[in-house]
Amino acid sequence: MAITVVGSVAFDSIETPAGKKDRCLGGAATHFSLAASFFTDVRVIAVVGEDFGPEQEAVFKKRNIDIQGIERAPGKSFFWEGSYLDNLNEAKTHITDLNVFASFEPKIPEAYRDSEFLFLANIDPVLQRRVRNEMPDVKLVAGDTMNYWIKDHRPALLQMLKGLDILLINDTEARMLAGNNNLVQAARGVLNLGPHTLVVKHGEYGATAFFSRNSFAPKGEGLEPHPFRAPALPLEEVVDPTGAGDSFAGGFFGYLASQRELTPATFRRAMFYGSVMGSYAVERFGTERIQALTRKEIDDRFILFRELTHLD
Amino acid sequence: MAITVVGSVAFDSIETPAGKKDRCLGGAATHFSLAASFFTDVRVIAVVGEDFGPEQEAVFKKRNIDIQGIERAPGKSFFWEGSYLDNLNEAKTHITDLNVFASFEPKIPEAYRDSEFLFLANIDPVLQRRVRNEMPDVKLVAGDTMNYWIKDHRPALLQMLKGLDILLINDTEARMLAGNNNLVQAARGVLNLGPHTLVVKHGEYGATAFFSRNSFAPKGEGLEPHPFRAPALPLEEVVDPTGAGDSFAGGFFGYLASQRELTPATFRRAMFYGSVMGSYAVERFGTERIQALTRKEIDDRFILFRELTHLD
Repeated sequence: MAITVVGSVAFDSIETPAGKKDRCLGGAATHFSLAASFFTDVRVIAVVGEDFGPEQEAVFKKRNIDIQGIERAPGKSFFWEGSYLDNLNEAKTHITDLNVFASFEPKIPEAYRDSEFLFLANIDPVLQRRVRNEMPDVKLVAGDTMNYWIKDHRPALLQMLKGLDILLINDTEARMLAGNNNLVQAARGVLNLGPHTLVVKHGEYGATAFFSRNSFAPKGEGLEPHPFRAPALPLEEVVDPTGAGDSFAGGFFGYLASQRELTPATFRRAMFYGSVMGSYAVERFGTERIQALTRKEIDDRFILFRELTHLD
Repeated sequence: MAITVVGSVAFDSIETPAGKKDRCLGGAATHFSLAASFFTDVRVIAVVGEDFGPEQEAVFKKRNIDIQGIERAPGKSFFWEGSYLDNLNEAKTHITDLNVFASFEPKIPEAYRDSEFLFLANIDPVLQRRVRNEMPDVKLVAGDTMNYWIKDHRPALLQMLKGLDILLINDTEARMLAGNNNLVQAARGVLNLGPHTLVVKHGEYGATAFFSRNSFAPKGEGLEPHPFRAPALPLEEVVDPTGAGDSFAGGFFGYLASQRELTPATFRRAMFYGSVMGSYAVERFGTERIQALTRKEIDDRFILFRELTHLD
């Protein structure tokens, strides 16, 4: 089943201990859709400027991603410059030029309206909510957000969260959103805000899913669901962490959308596929590694993740 | 098979967000031996002062732990006072009174000499090495250390590491010991110092084992072994983190010692039992929770850990 994703398509200039790259193709919707495209059909809603040309288009088209929802506007695309020189787990932002993104008004192409899965990548929660409300019939809605919206746009964020099934954020964001330093208590707090499932990403330590109910269990199973933890791969070198979380989300949601039935087993496998895509994403700058990825590599790493965590 | 453990038996005064306890029974050898005692016979080598009385003895005896190697010396037992008010992951030390521990000279009782497993809890690496050399015929030697020895007693520590099969330390210690911030590279560095197996404890994110060779595989299996990651339980409340690492080590090494054969499967289960014991240890102050633990609770949580991480 097809996923529609709304979010940023951007250019990133990135410096890490491994080197420096200027104006890579980036943005949350880009990383998400490339990762998800290995599992299902993906349709993107975004806005870009005149600097987005055939070279960038080709990256999406090669993965059969539908980009009729990427609007062209006069001016420049969203541009971000940051570095990870001190800390690979946290970017230091040098420049954020919203450019054409400052006046982004998401428009949903007719051809996207039968999408059964919707992903609201990290943008203004007012826009996330608008898109969600315009697609009332989707089967499953997941989304992301960040510290900026949690701190300074809380009322709009809380409205948006009411329309989400699954929220994917990192530890710091979960604790900040719930105002609680204990992760289990924070998770319960977040689950009270709308989503029935919270996926907390721990960077190099993997990710944990918390549930408010047995959302993915056959009807009638009434037991309190316990969390599920997917590992991350201990990596020799992290070249560029940019987009790791979005690639996780793409692998996770892409796999879910590819399945006929949503069950607890499907959900757990989706968490593993999220970790697989996140682990590949950081191996090279920007989207380079995911662009070059094969389905066999995905399956091989999935098996490795099983061996990394399973008793037998 | 029996484990001999050498390390501290102490009194701890601890303050955490959950409250304050004065002069709990503590020390690495205490936490280790209580946890290990659920799996195999445990024999302790330590020194205590005149303040160690029948009440403290009874804690060991109730778990059938052999304490003939706990020497009584004139003066007071090792005393530590610390708090976790700012950060549950790192203790702030207020007082360390070595007392009788300052002149500790480990003596190995004759009855301990047929122990097949040896655990060198976190003490002066000179003493760890001496005990290890006096028990040359043990089947498996594991040990722990801490930042203080890594920073200020490096030559002695490096000597000691040559006699270890398994080193258990936390992320910060592994990175400090190898002088490398990347965990995989740090692990390789540590494995070059002696131990064939390194277990890195990640606190609330579990623990990862790295191997320099297939130490636990049947002979002839020549593949480069991949790491193994055991989860930690996401906990609603951490009452007191003191001794969590030693309890992990006790569950881990105790389970290994209880098995007829050391195989990769045995090793993985040992990692899970380590996590189980660590997760129980933090639920109450000092050794309270482990003292009250039952084998059924251990097995129930083992099953929960499997459900927390396994795809099927």
